[in-house]
Amino acid sequence: MDGEPLRVGLLGGGTVGSQVARLILEHGDDLAARIGRPLELVGIVVRNLDRPRPGLPASLLTTDAEGLVTREGIDIAIELIGGIDPAQDLILKAMSHGASVVTANKALLAAKGDELFGAAQHAGVDLYYEAAVAGAIPIVRPLSESLVGDEIQVVMGIVNGTTNYILDKMTAEGMDYQTALVQAQDLGYAEADPTADVEGHDAAAKAALLASLAFHTRVRGDQVHREGITGVAPQDIRAARGLGCVVKLLAVAKLLDDGQISVRVHPAMVPNTHPLASVKGAYNAIFVEAAAAGRLMFLGPGAGGAPTASAVVGDLVTVARNRSRGVVGPVQPMYNDHEVAPMGLVTTRYFVRLRVQDEPGVLAGVAGVFARHHISVQDVQQTPAGGKAGDASAELYLLTHEAKEADLLECVADLQASPQVQAAVRFMRVEGM
Amino acid sequence: MDGEPLRVGLLGGGTVGSQVARLILEHGDDLAARIGRPLELVGIVVRNLDRPRPGLPASLLTTDAEGLVTREGIDIAIELIGGIDPAQDLILKAMSHGASVVTANKALLAAKGDELFGAAQHAGVDLYYEAAVAGAIPIVRPLSESLVGDEIQVVMGIVNGTTNYILDKMTAEGMDYQTALVQAQDLGYAEADPTADVEGHDAAAKAALLASLAFHTRVRGDQVHREGITGVAPQDIRAARGLGCVVKLLAVAKLLDDGQISVRVHPAMVPNTHPLASVKGAYNAIFVEAAAAGRLMFLGPGAGGAPTASAVVGDLVTVARNRSRGVVGPVQPMYNDHEVAPMGLVTTRYFVRLRVQDEPGVLAGVAGVFARHHISVQDVQQTPAGGKAGDASAELYLLTHEAKEADLLECVADLQASPQVQAAVRFMRVEGM
Ligand SMILES: NC(=O)c1ccc[n+]([C@@H]2O[C@H](COP(=O)([O-])OP(=O)(O)OC[C@H]3O[C@@H](n4cnc5c(N)ncnc54)[C@H](OP(=O)(O)O)[C@@H]3O)[C@@H](O)[C@H]2O)c1
Ligand SMILES: NC(=O)c1ccc[n+]([C@@H]2O[C@H](COP(=O)([O-])OP(=O)(O)OC[C@H]3O[C@@H](n4cnc5c(N)ncnc54)[C@H](OP(=O)(O)O)[C@@H]3O)[C@@H](O)[C@H]2O)c1
Repeated sequence: MDGEPLRVGLLGGGTVGSQVARLILEHGDDLAARIGRPLELVGIVVRNLDRPRPGLPASLLTTDAEGLVTREGIDIAIELIGGIDPAQDLILKAMSHGASVVTANKALLAAKGDELFGAAQHAGVDLYYEAAVAGAIPIVRPLSESLVGDEIQVVMGIVNGTTNYILDKMTAEGMDYQTALVQAQDLGYAEADPTADVEGHDAAAKAALLASLAFHTRVRGDQVHREGITGVAPQDIRAARGLGCVVKLLAVAKLLDDGQISVRVHPAMVPNTHPLASVKGAYNAIFVEAAAAGRLMFLGPGAGGAPTASAVVGDLVTVARNRSRGVVGPVQPMYNDHEVAPMGLVTTRYFVRLRVQDEPGVLAGVAGVFARHHISVQDVQQTPAGGKAGDASAELYLLTHEAKEADLLECVADLQASPQVQAAVRFMRVEGM
Repeated sequence: MDGEPLRVGLLGGGTVGSQVARLILEHGDDLAARIGRPLELVGIVVRNLDRPRPGLPASLLTTDAEGLVTREGIDIAIELIGGIDPAQDLILKAMSHGASVVTANKALLAAKGDELFGAAQHAGVDLYYEAAVAGAIPIVRPLSESLVGDEIQVVMGIVNGTTNYILDKMTAEGMDYQTALVQAQDLGYAEADPTADVEGHDAAAKAALLASLAFHTRVRGDQVHREGITGVAPQDIRAARGLGCVVKLLAVAKLLDDGQISVRVHPAMVPNTHPLASVKGAYNAIFVEAAAAGRLMFLGPGAGGAPTASAVVGDLVTVARNRSRGVVGPVQPMYNDHEVAPMGLVTTRYFVRLRVQDEPGVLAGVAGVFARHHISVQDVQQTPAGGKAGDASAELYLLTHEAKEADLLECVADLQASPQVQAAVRFMRVEGM
């Protein structure tokens, strides 16, 4: 292959970094042919030099991250350390020293996207991040290029494999949340500290990136309404089944009628007929609805060392091609300023579950509360819930038509205050029906 | 918006062209914001100026295609005429006059890709074609950029909505091919002359483009082994159901162990558990298997004016961004020279159906023929097929393990020659099991 090699510095040699190094080292000839110039991996930054790292040449390992990104002649820095510090600082230093950057760091991009993309533009370098949303699934280019001529209305995805695995277990095997979590941990699908996944932080960062791309508006992770799956009960899963639905943790970004956008992560019931319902285990999928294109879905492995490395090396080739031609890729102008709507203004359908005294007039009373809050009920099911003789209670399951969340919350509060309601009133949003 | 408008000439104002014009005219401000410069639609080429064209400004219509593409200052030509002539000539003229080109013309690209991409490079302009494969589904960028760091092993898709609609009807409602075709024509899913769809020409052109992208090798449409759906019988559909499969017209591109590639379009049985099996009606889907990324699928509307226009305008924005920055997009180097394997060397699994005399020893005889050709049989089912008393016959259904097509064909010829075999021996390939 002609031409000077492009010099690549790799920050991080962990789950993803080690696979990126492997792909670069094993497929050098192919990558060079695709780029038009060879790549040279000049260093791999880790914290601990003593850890055995099969497949990674010891001569490339270093703990001097700053030295690597500011080294003379680095063309491309790949950031796979994760977190805000020192990743942000290293990326900014690499860019100010003239290197283009590839990263998979959704947490950082969702927190500091404005600064980072601004710095890349200022430095005249690329900042690519296909791996940051849904691992191996191509979604950044589809949204920022293939669909950029269209008006995207909804992006709705299963973007966290850990929680999808847990909910799948709860659905298929009737496990409770805690049992399914422990099993996911035993199998390596969930971390020892599962907070980032099960509380929805990871999905919220991805939702922010998806919403930014879809609506040409910068959305930060902390603007995303976020609920995790720790409160999902076996009863919710069973109730979903009764409705012909499954419970999924969804990342939702929707353009509302008033020009605001709704960006949120929460468990939701999804009808079995919806393409997202059949996404199993650690797979991810992103469903997109656009005015002209219609309904699209992208499915694939959302995490894991090799799949994520595939997306990183795809970016690496793209950035290297740009660099060898002396250009940078297009910038996504964030020209809209859609506001993120407060949850109270969001409309969706709801499933409401409550336990009431099983006596004449209760159903009418409950229906009256919904009516008072202008929430139209599509379907009610009543099942005896057992209880002592003379103290029988019933479970009521209600499915509403579209309603405003603020109205729903007031309705729930009113129901809760009613003397006939015996336990906590629970609700779950229903999407894709 | 700052800057001189980019001047766009539209060749074709039919199903897709009219929708492209609509999107450009209705969403001018958004497109300008995304590009960084406004677009100006300067002309729309049609054959017949008298036809009413609601939504298309009469002042833009012209029959002078050559005049439009060679007009001073045209930045981008969009070719939506279709076919080889005059589309090829117009694209080459537009490029030699300095315009970048967007097209949805798979037939032309599959026949003349080398010349056209060569001419684009020579002229220093872009040639984009996201809409040419699977309509609105982003697949060109995913293959050429997102997955470009990976080793793609299989691309397998449902890339023709007309045939998928017909096979769906045959499956869901037990219709025969002819009845389903007529219904598809009545509903506008199939053309009056359905040849391009039902004989697999359209799918073969797309298979060639997919294989070229996936394997970095130029594959032409006429190198694709092609069988249409006109021979699919209700018995095949029923037999597939018995195997837990559905019949789909697949476009398959596979990297073989010996470095050759198999590129083919034919009906195949696909297990119900495979993600392609659930692709319904006029939807398209493309399944990709890559060494690092694993299994991915892309689903969406594969045709239709608005969905196809979405992909065209996505390319238009990308090309316009390039142009306003004075760059062109990356070229896909076709650096491999994988040969297209003759069908005889392809291995897959087969379903074989034959009618035999229902008498002792027949099954052993049939099994012996398979064994002689080194084809291992996974499963045999025998069902009485009726017939006159004393002349009873049975249907044998056999599912093979992977076998070489040449062996299978010899085996089928031997079976056909056997005196116990009463009717034409039929077989169908089984993919994705
Ligand atoms: N894992 C996935 O499936 C996945 C999927 C999509 C995106 N991502 C993203 O990819 C990034 C990397 O994830 P990962 O799973 O590969 O993480 P990981 O396995 O924890 O690896 C992190 C690597 O960075 C090194 N490192 C950490 N802090 C450092 C510091 N201060 N200075 C120098 N080196 C440091 C570590 O060194 P030691 O090896 O010495 O500890 C390790 O090699 C994250 O942004 C993550 O969100 C991961
Ligand atoms: N339709 C789809 O769903 C779809 C999907 C994917 C890709 N495509 C591709 O998109 C392209 C256009 O398809 P389409 O369905 O829009 O075709 P169409 O409806 O037949 O439109 C063709 C247009 O080109 C004009 N035209 C034809 N021959 C011409 C000539 N010699 N000189 C000047 N103008 C001429 C026609 O003029 P008149 O209007 O006066 O006849 C018409 O406006 C094709 O390459 C097709 O393969 C189509």
